[in-house]
Amino acid sequence: MEVTNKYIVTKQHIEDEPKESHFEIKTEALALTVEPGSDDIIIKNLYISIDPYMINRMKGYSSSQSAISFATPITPGKAIDAVVIGKVVASGNPKFEKNDFVMGVFHWAEYSLVKEGSIINKLDSSEFPLSYHLGVLGFSGLSAYGGFFEVCKPQSGEKVFVSAASGSIGNLVGQYAKLLGCYVVGCAGSQKKVSLLKEKLGFDEAFNYKEETDLNSTLKRYFPDGIDIYFDNVGGEMLEAAIGNMKAFGRVSVCGVIAQYTDVEKRASPNMLDIVYKRITIKGFLANDFMNDFAKFLAKTSDYLRSGKLQVIEDISTGVESVPSAFIGLFKGDNVGKKIVSLAKE
Amino acid sequence: MEVTNKYIVTKQHIEDEPKESHFEIKTEALALTVEPGSDDIIIKNLYISIDPYMINRMKGYSSSQSAISFATPITPGKAIDAVVIGKVVASGNPKFEKNDFVMGVFHWAEYSLVKEGSIINKLDSSEFPLSYHLGVLGFSGLSAYGGFFEVCKPQSGEKVFVSAASGSIGNLVGQYAKLLGCYVVGCAGSQKKVSLLKEKLGFDEAFNYKEETDLNSTLKRYFPDGIDIYFDNVGGEMLEAAIGNMKAFGRVSVCGVIAQYTDVEKRASPNMLDIVYKRITIKGFLANDFMNDFAKFLAKTSDYLRSGKLQVIEDISTGVESVPSAFIGLFKGDNVGKKIVSLAKE
Repeated sequence: MEVTNKYIVTKQHIEDEPKESHFEIKTEALALTVEPGSDDIIIKNLYISIDPYMINRMKGYSSSQSAISFATPITPGKAIDAVVIGKVVASGNPKFEKNDFVMGVFHWAEYSLVKEGSIINKLDSSEFPLSYHLGVLGFSGLSAYGGFFEVCKPQSGEKVFVSAASGSIGNLVGQYAKLLGCYVVGCAGSQKKVSLLKEKLGFDEAFNYKEETDLNSTLKRYFPDGIDIYFDNVGGEMLEAAIGNMKAFGRVSVCGVIAQYTDVEKRASPNMLDIVYKRITIKGFLANDFMNDFAKFLAKTSDYLRSGKLQVIEDISTGVESVPSAFIGLFKGDNVGKKIVSLAKE
Repeated sequence: MEVTNKYIVTKQHIEDEPKESHFEIKTEALALTVEPGSDDIIIKNLYISIDPYMINRMKGYSSSQSAISFATPITPGKAIDAVVIGKVVASGNPKFEKNDFVMGVFHWAEYSLVKEGSIINKLDSSEFPLSYHLGVLGFSGLSAYGGFFEVCKPQSGEKVFVSAASGSIGNLVGQYAKLLGCYVVGCAGSQKKVSLLKEKLGFDEAFNYKEETDLNSTLKRYFPDGIDIYFDNVGGEMLEAAIGNMKAFGRVSVCGVIAQYTDVEKRASPNMLDIVYKRITIKGFLANDFMNDFAKFLAKTSDYLRSGKLQVIEDISTGVESVPSAFIGLFKGDNVGKKIVSLAKE
């Protein structure tokens, strides 16, 4: 059997805000059978993870030592690899059978032809919805878990500030922090998101940063005695204001820099005197750094889900054609929680 | 016996470059005897430590949570407390006797009338020159030791960059790093300093930053494979360039921000993408944080001095009148090594 496989490509490198015109849908004929002797695996993609950091991979590749050289580049015109959940359609590899659910580095596509090494995990769909493995039980969850518990070493009662707090990672950081017994304030970009944080996710306070004129004063209002931990998803002015309001021995976990992803001018200029006098630690991380903690993370998070202590916020669009707009929407603040594109019935 | 005690005061808060006109010399009559029943101690000051961070204490005090509120303010017109080595002239306190050498928080003055709590250490002058206790065996040394070994956790063979490398702390960091087996590059502000670093202190390389037009390229030249550890004394553009040239899991120890002390506009805007993708840690510290390591630091550093492995660079001016110019000179790069004002014969 042969299908016409639709996949998304970039038409050019993207240096600023992504737009629909940067992307196109291509098609290819794909046989859903594996040649004898080959260890290929053919995957029907079910859920595609849509993540802001992908924009960095779409930029012009630099051979310098700068950060961008650490991101595997996406080549215009070529299929875009990303974390995807799919179902095995055909397999020449004895480790995988037809109808296995798997998560791996597949493509922004309806189908992917991959090797064993692309597959990260076989998934069990009996207890939790499959899509959870992209968010709360996947890399978003691991980023929240590792970036909060491992990087920040939080203590119960500490004061925690989370930016992009309704995003895929921020909402989980805030919930983990509340479960630990911290005071938690989140910021987001709409009143609807603010309500979600306070009413559904149990944040102590939340504010819409677009309605604030002086972020330094805003943070002083919510943290009159200062911030112990800042979980940073955005960089820019919010990072500056947070550092200005940290307590002594405060910790900043840098997960993302969305302010800077699409505008290199929006760099933060934190006050280094604060860093010295308050002995602040700023530390960047990638989810991969915590792979050794994955089992611990999964056990703890699954328990929280079973007991209903952790809320899952997913934002799901449908069809491979919606991948570009889903991705573009991340930079406009369209998504609430984990952004996923669903492709086909399980 | 009574003396006319000369002491230095600021005439106003100092928000930018310090100038002679910001300071004046005052005098007071001081009896060199202690009243019966008082536990006062009268100190004849011998060596005054001259340190850049004092400028932060001279700024207008802010009650905000910003860094400056962590620095004990210096009040215009009042005697300026600072780390000083002196000799006890008279003591009502049974723990201290006439002619004891002591280091403590005394004043920019010829004599100081203090209480027991102001004295940090009694000093033994039999093995090393007294002045060493302000530099290599004092807080400069402890800052270098703690800021390098404790904050950076260096390994032999790692690539280390030190700014203000001929300064009181930087020169020791570079020497500690060489003794550990690191590759060490320093930057300084004159050819004479560069020669000192390479020829006397054993740095692998050194450069005059004033002769470089593109610090990013300069660092790439000296660190083609990247920097593991950056010991930052300056902030500003040098910090930005260093972060751009860090390796994955690089560490930045922030000791000082001299670029920003006298010009608030000279804030660094490090690329936060580097922080994330390279998992860089930036950490500020104060020497006090390492008081528990003082004995270990002193033992190790004394051994290095005895075996001639560590060079001591002091820059000594004479007379209390020279304190303002010695201090002002720090911000012009006049000093080479630890800046001290010597007041009287021991």
